[in-house]
Amino acid sequence: MVKKMLYGGDYNPEQWDEAVWEEDMRMFRLAGIDCVTLNVFSWAALQSDEVTYHFERLDKIMELVRKNNLKVVMATSTAAHPAWMAKKYPEVLRTEFNGMKRKFGSRHNSCPNSPVYQKYSVALARKLAERYGTYDNIVTWHISNEYGGECYCENCEKAFRVWLKEKYGSIEALNKAWNTSFWGHTFYDWDEIVVPNLQSEHFAQNRTTFQGISLDYRRFNSDSILHNYLGEYEAVKAVTPHIPVTTNLMGFYKALDYQKWAGYMDVVSWDNYPDPTDPPALVAMRHDLMRGLKQGAPFMLMEQTPSVTNWQSYNLLKRPGDMRLISYQAVAHGADTVMFFQMRRSIGACEKFHGAVIDHVGTENTRVFREVSQLGEELKQLGDTTLDSRTPSKAAMLVDWDNWWALEYSAGPSCDLKYMDELANYYTALYDNNISVDIISAQDPLDDYKVVIAPVMYMTKPGADEKIRKFVSEGGTFVTTFLSGLVDEHDLVITGGYPGKLRDILGIWVEETDALPSYMKNSFSWNGKDYDCGLICDIMHMENAQALACYDKDFYEGTPVLSKNEFGTGHAYYVATRAGQDFYADFLNKVLKEQGVEPVFKPCKGVEITLRRKEETNFLFFLNHNPRESVLIAEKPGTDLLTGKEYCPGDEIVLQTKGVVLFKEQNA
Amino acid sequence: MVKKMLYGGDYNPEQWDEAVWEEDMRMFRLAGIDCVTLNVFSWAALQSDEVTYHFERLDKIMELVRKNNLKVVMATSTAAHPAWMAKKYPEVLRTEFNGMKRKFGSRHNSCPNSPVYQKYSVALARKLAERYGTYDNIVTWHISNEYGGECYCENCEKAFRVWLKEKYGSIEALNKAWNTSFWGHTFYDWDEIVVPNLQSEHFAQNRTTFQGISLDYRRFNSDSILHNYLGEYEAVKAVTPHIPVTTNLMGFYKALDYQKWAGYMDVVSWDNYPDPTDPPALVAMRHDLMRGLKQGAPFMLMEQTPSVTNWQSYNLLKRPGDMRLISYQAVAHGADTVMFFQMRRSIGACEKFHGAVIDHVGTENTRVFREVSQLGEELKQLGDTTLDSRTPSKAAMLVDWDNWWALEYSAGPSCDLKYMDELANYYTALYDNNISVDIISAQDPLDDYKVVIAPVMYMTKPGADEKIRKFVSEGGTFVTTFLSGLVDEHDLVITGGYPGKLRDILGIWVEETDALPSYMKNSFSWNGKDYDCGLICDIMHMENAQALACYDKDFYEGTPVLSKNEFGTGHAYYVATRAGQDFYADFLNKVLKEQGVEPVFKPCKGVEITLRRKEETNFLFFLNHNPRESVLIAEKPGTDLLTGKEYCPGDEIVLQTKGVVLFKEQNA
Amino acid sequence: MVKKMLYGGDYNPEQWDEAVWEEDMRMFRLAGIDCVTLNVFSWAALQSDEVTYHFERLDKIMELVRKNNLKVVMATSTAAHPAWMAKKYPEVLRTEFNGMKRKFGSRHNSCPNSPVYQKYSVALARKLAERYGTYDNIVTWHISNEYGGECYCENCEKAFRVWLKEKYGSIEALNKAWNTSFWGHTFYDWDEIVVPNLQSEHFAQNRTTFQGISLDYRRFNSDSILHNYLGEYEAVKAVTPHIPVTTNLMGFYKALDYQKWAGYMDVVSWDNYPDPTDPPALVAMRHDLMRGLKQGAPFMLMEQTPSVTNWQSYNLLKRPGDMRLISYQAVAHGADTVMFFQMRRSIGACEKFHGAVIDHVGTENTRVFREVSQLGEELKQLGDTTLDSRTPSKAAMLVDWDNWWALEYSAGPSCDLKYMDELANYYTALYDNNISVDIISAQDPLDDYKVVIAPVMYMTKPGADEKIRKFVSEGGTFVTTFLSGLVDEHDLVITGGYPGKLRDILGIWVEETDALPSYMKNSFSWNGKDYDCGLICDIMHMENAQALACYDKDFYEGTPVLSKNEFGTGHAYYVATRAGQDFYADFLNKVLKEQGVEPVFKPCKGVEITLRRKEETNFLFFLNHNPRESVLIAEKPGTDLLTGKEYCPGDEIVLQTKGVVLFKEQNA
Repeated sequence: MVKKMLYGGDYNPEQWDEAVWEEDMRMFRLAGIDCVTLNVFSWAALQSDEVTYHFERLDKIMELVRKNNLKVVMATSTAAHPAWMAKKYPEVLRTEFNGMKRKFGSRHNSCPNSPVYQKYSVALARKLAERYGTYDNIVTWHISNEYGGECYCENCEKAFRVWLKEKYGSIEALNKAWNTSFWGHTFYDWDEIVVPNLQSEHFAQNRTTFQGISLDYRRFNSDSILHNYLGEYEAVKAVTPHIPVTTNLMGFYKALDYQKWAGYMDVVSWDNYPDPTDPPALVAMRHDLMRGLKQGAPFMLMEQTPSVTNWQSYNLLKRPGDMRLISYQAVAHGADTVMFFQMRRSIGACEKFHGAVIDHVGTENTRVFREVSQLGEELKQLGDTTLDSRTPSKAAMLVDWDNWWALEYSAGPSCDLKYMDELANYYTALYDNNISVDIISAQDPLDDYKVVIAPVMYMTKPGADEKIRKFVSEGGTFVTTFLSGLVDEHDLVITGGYPGKLRDILGIWVEETDALPSYMKNSFSWNGKDYDCGLICDIMHMENAQALACYDKDFYEGTPVLSKNEFGTGHAYYVATRAGQDFYADFLNKVLKEQGVEPVFKPCKGVEITLRRKEETNFLFFLNHNPRESVLIAEKPGTDLLTGKEYCPGDEIVLQTKGVVLFKEQNA
Repeated sequence: MVKKMLYGGDYNPEQWDEAVWEEDMRMFRLAGIDCVTLNVFSWAALQSDEVTYHFERLDKIMELVRKNNLKVVMATSTAAHPAWMAKKYPEVLRTEFNGMKRKFGSRHNSCPNSPVYQKYSVALARKLAERYGTYDNIVTWHISNEYGGECYCENCEKAFRVWLKEKYGSIEALNKAWNTSFWGHTFYDWDEIVVPNLQSEHFAQNRTTFQGISLDYRRFNSDSILHNYLGEYEAVKAVTPHIPVTTNLMGFYKALDYQKWAGYMDVVSWDNYPDPTDPPALVAMRHDLMRGLKQGAPFMLMEQTPSVTNWQSYNLLKRPGDMRLISYQAVAHGADTVMFFQMRRSIGACEKFHGAVIDHVGTENTRVFREVSQLGEELKQLGDTTLDSRTPSKAAMLVDWDNWWALEYSAGPSCDLKYMDELANYYTALYDNNISVDIISAQDPLDDYKVVIAPVMYMTKPGADEKIRKFVSEGGTFVTTFLSGLVDEHDLVITGGYPGKLRDILGIWVEETDALPSYMKNSFSWNGKDYDCGLICDIMHMENAQALACYDKDFYEGTPVLSKNEFGTGHAYYVATRAGQDFYADFLNKVLKEQGVEPVFKPCKGVEITLRRKEETNFLFFLNHNPRESVLIAEKPGTDLLTGKEYCPGDEIVLQTKGVVLFKEQNA
Repeated sequence: MVKKMLYGGDYNPEQWDEAVWEEDMRMFRLAGIDCVTLNVFSWAALQSDEVTYHFERLDKIMELVRKNNLKVVMATSTAAHPAWMAKKYPEVLRTEFNGMKRKFGSRHNSCPNSPVYQKYSVALARKLAERYGTYDNIVTWHISNEYGGECYCENCEKAFRVWLKEKYGSIEALNKAWNTSFWGHTFYDWDEIVVPNLQSEHFAQNRTTFQGISLDYRRFNSDSILHNYLGEYEAVKAVTPHIPVTTNLMGFYKALDYQKWAGYMDVVSWDNYPDPTDPPALVAMRHDLMRGLKQGAPFMLMEQTPSVTNWQSYNLLKRPGDMRLISYQAVAHGADTVMFFQMRRSIGACEKFHGAVIDHVGTENTRVFREVSQLGEELKQLGDTTLDSRTPSKAAMLVDWDNWWALEYSAGPSCDLKYMDELANYYTALYDNNISVDIISAQDPLDDYKVVIAPVMYMTKPGADEKIRKFVSEGGTFVTTFLSGLVDEHDLVITGGYPGKLRDILGIWVEETDALPSYMKNSFSWNGKDYDCGLICDIMHMENAQALACYDKDFYEGTPVLSKNEFGTGHAYYVATRAGQDFYADFLNKVLKEQGVEPVFKPCKGVEITLRRKEETNFLFFLNHNPRESVLIAEKPGTDLLTGKEYCPGDEIVLQTKGVVLFKEQNA
């Protein structure tokens, strides 16, 4: 079998009479489908009590798909526990943020710290591995499904105390880390600690009176669910060490620290469900996050809708060409599979209006099926050409879950400050300029980069400043913003002057932070242009740095808003306010140019252009998001792999609306 | 005593010293009040423990009103249980949607499946019947009051399982009906089933992950409360088989399937509390629903405020003339009583600012009392003239509670789609054109109609398509809209192509459904006029039907938006989108004209005109909602029953602002 | 030591290493700090179980501050119970309005009716008094901190019944007061009564079905917390009868009836945290409320931020000069201290972004520290000059907590009607005209006033009408508004005609009340000017009064909107609607002029001017809130105490932006 991008998706034959199965196979062949994700929500069907398992139907399905030459992404079915288990062992049910004990229902419904859940989920994974591990068409294990949520039950409360004891060693260390002398919170015993929720420290989901406690609970919750994943991971690995293991992630999903998780995943996979109003840059940023999780390794696009979702406020159809365009966008950013949720549209419950490859009408005579088939044909033609290619980047954007959590738990300075927004502002400036960028974690090395951007790096984790100091002193360019360097890993302020441990690198002292309501604005001039700003205005003093621009207004009129510091052989920039997209574009272009970081292709508004490289070959992806034809000029000789058309330098590359060109540069 | 429209309302002498009672009688006489609703909230006063009843005061009140020649609507007082019962038997208390167990308080506070509540409510009804059944001035029993709400307690959970067992017979049938293979919900035992609420399947009041479960719970809850009603119904009927029984309904009240309930009511009654911003058409639609519940039989207007409510955001006074106008509007649509809440304004608790016939000032020298008295005088003059007249309609609008529930539980396609809105759009077009319309249920026969309109007939119940097929094939006109025919009675999609079982009748296949956010619009031209549309756009193919109009825009530009199918000797129309009121008016006028369905009177903007007929006599109601005088031209000779004024054809009928003419046509 | 305004604030050395303490002392000296509030949140640190106390660190702190000549406001630390106590005695934890039992966390977390909390909080207060009572630098006891909130637990439920039994004596009296014949709420036994919350009578925090119950629960809750305060009050008084006792209030804090509380406080103190968008008049009104609590006695400004808060949506910095201006505003209205929260900025938990005298940077080289130091120097110079001066007022505004509660619990007439808004409308008119006004309670005598204003005096408490009747008949002017006089102290309507017991005084009868949605308006002309009005329009009849103006529109066009009644030798005005600020200014100016009540100084827009008097000396405070220089003309000879500058009549007094002049008039 030729190696190629896997093409297929979630397939739930268990929802259908067997009579339908053969028809499915026929249609998969028509559409070029070669891979199905099986067994995602079958726990209740597979196991009817503690000891009784029913694999007969799954056996049949596995035979069916093997016979039809389909690869299998094999799920473990543990994303929703059976009703009988909830009834017999209510401890498997979650407790909500407000203390409400759940009953059986929905999905994502298992307490991660339930011994019963842990026992039976791992047992099921092992049984599946034992029974189906010899099927050579299984390409990955798919543990559970879209892990997420939180639990605040007694199991969790007890496990939290154990987790804390391991982390802090002594109650004194914990009291110090949580600053419990504030508001008389001193703990004398681990058992006095309760989960931080609406019953205790929180007055709203994201508003807490004790940031340290709440921050640790986020870490604990992410770890607890990771522990569920690892239990199943180890169970299947023990039986099938050769099969890679994944679980489908969800982009910037706040509850789980994916950067930590990725260390335990053989391959990253994720589900891409953009809102129709999301700009393409935002979708691209999510892909780049996923690619960055395993330091640039290709990821699986595990789910996307071929046509329409059902759970958005307005479920707009993907217009003709949208699905193809968005599929190639994933590939352009590092995906090596194109997969859908789902193959056949369900007839009942909450996803019956969710699009599928095979619609309720059941025939191949639908627009959606035709578009799926066309893409299937293209991917077949592409074969393994681009498989395992990489994205070479000299620029990196630092993203950190702890920083995200801590920043947004902080009481003040502004309710409108969101980490995602600040990331998107900087990312979009890079995106618009066709700059390859890696989204890296605080743990990743900086050595290969020329420019590192860390928007609102509020928390300085141990060693982070050292790494940045070395990076800058050896010639790198570091860019950060207002509210950076304020706290340590416990969300305790680093006293002595902001931005704390970054102060010498940035050469500034930030004295005060002003938070402007939306009706207040400020502005500044830089490099001959005027820019609006607002939201946050740090008031700072130059210590070693040079002021590049100053505020135009208010009592800090004339004080610096943008600074540049020479540090060793590199430079560090501080952007003290939230500006507009025009500023970020101008500013980053200049910073990148100083470091010789070049666009992968000359920018053309509305056309997304990315580069993947395999050995010495460059693959350029041209994606036309404009509602009209766009024309580029070929810079080098090459071939469009989707049409076979060849281009010489200077030739026009004409992109239809939603058009895609996969340009293989001719090696010199 | 002359038979006439009952005039009066809720009377709560138990809130007042007996000294006030005689004054009440005097004022009732002044105002022409001849009927009082008694004993609505007296349970706690009537019964102080399981075995002790106190009827002395009610005896006195009954004597008082009999002596004063007042008719009595006799309530059973069971709409709020006593505090002592809640304390002794907490099981009578409801559990909220979020699992919160209630304490004693408010009203509508009894669990419908509480054996204690069932026992004592029925016992009280029986005792009341036994004690007062011989009073010949009792005109109806009034069971409980404004039944409503939901409960999610353990009693309900157990009763729900029993209800399900009766409905489905086997757990396999239930699993199939609920499509439990989705998200691993397979049930092995009835006891694994829990109530669908915020603790289980719901993430918001109207958002569920399992439509089938939630839909059945709505049916179960409506049935449970109906069972309460029936318990009392049977208790009073056993003693006083001659007295009709009702309970006061509330228009389009979603929680209770009034079309099912009506089968168990001797007479329909309801409480009319429009919001000041409700257009008159909406109020009219509610009246027509009530009239339709018992196939056109006159209903009782049981409650309305004479002046002002207290529970709206802004409790605007009814302007002079409003109360009279709105009272006659009820009669114009089929009411045979005009009644108020309440006779004397209470002095404490949440309704102390709710208007009453007798205000806090306690005298007859108020604007409100004068208006009540004027109307009282008019009704006395009218006597039994219009009593028991009927509304002859050749058009019907199909309304179905199951459809309402299922449509709005669906996840997707648009959060803005509300069944009520779609009904109102079509109804208003009929209303504006003075077309008599019956609001019928899915169970009602279609034989007498020429045009049947079924907006968003999302669910096709068993037999429904057969009935429509017969209706159309025999010459009727059927009109339906986007999203029709999708699901069966379990909310399971009917596969093979939308609109499912209606496909042959409509002669179309709907391939996709687009849900437009509010900032997106489409448009079309029909019959030489342009119309905007949006919200939902079905994309359809003509099979046998003829396209009457096509979309102007988007990727489905040029595809049909409006279709007409010849089927047998009739026609079936499909309106694939939400258009504006201009379209509905033009479209329905044409459709009705094709079938020879005529307005009851030539339309005049802002003047509501309806027809009631008794034997061979036509009563035309002219109701001027315009903020100015309006003038009509008499079409036939006749007499205004309110003034005695006679009209010849061609005469001007002058309606003052808020003016009413009750035009008795002279029989030919 | 010279007597002077205390200057300092909350100091939490327990959050810091002892090494920092000496640095704190140095900086306090630099800033002119002479007073610290200690021990606010130390309960958990002071007591580690039922019998073990740890005073060593507090001993050290007390020695430190005494050695450094700092006065001490000594807190009792009971505003947050220790975690161990919550664990061992869960009864100390509160139950929320929705029935949610709390776990340990946050602050304001103790059930006021918990015997355990009562026992240990009083014990701690006593121990503190015993240990530190001999320190002669303690200037006040500071009981708990910012008392507030509500509890709905079983302790409270039982205590509520006891409280009710004491209040009503018999269950019959209670049934009458609560009008329980409405909605069948008759109680037979005290134990049937439950707390009114979301589980019982409420459907939202401020929406109840039984106003009487809910109103009594507000009173009970305020009393319960007052009982906590009194327990500690008595404990410290028993040991240190010479030290005054206070607790820090919060302005118009709805949950606690401060007018009742003040009777048990030796001195009033409060925390002033205006929102940046609050107009200065609103802040002034809060100060005047605080001053009025003890009939004009000076109060302590216990807390304000020197720079920024952390808990507002947008935490705007106080601009340079803001803190000084707002501090003097407090003094201008009767404060005799200027104190901050807090001295050193905390590093962790929810207030780490709250401003402090000593910032995280830890040095004196900050803008904020410089401003604090400047003010410190000024206060040192002022010494005791203005201490204990009083505000002589001939006008009073009546404010009543019961009225506030009852008005806003009422169902209807308008959701937009808020007591605070109505108070602010009238207050602002006085403020803008430099009229000294006392904010008085329903219990305060009226003898010293010429004009008494009672906006929306919805509730007439026993004796209130008598006092007003006497006041007016003896020559006073009384002003009240729509919705006044409606109910008695149980929120039961006084029948016989609104405004009830005020009817003879006002000489009017109000027949109806119209509540206009925001899109409806009315208007009227008075004294040659046109005014808009809306929200509420009472429709009234003149009985003895004279109509001064009439409505321009609607069905009550031409009926009176403003009336004046001669009653004895005085007058009573009724304003039947909500008008704009222009009307209130014109109207009150005229009313005050009639009574010879004069401004303390000729008004100048944006310049707040107040008067304090000590013996025969007048101190005029000129506070420039304008964003520009303002110039006044001296009316009498005098001296600016802040600069020493002397003025003769006719001299210009130039106020810079945010400038303050403390003008000591030269005695004649």
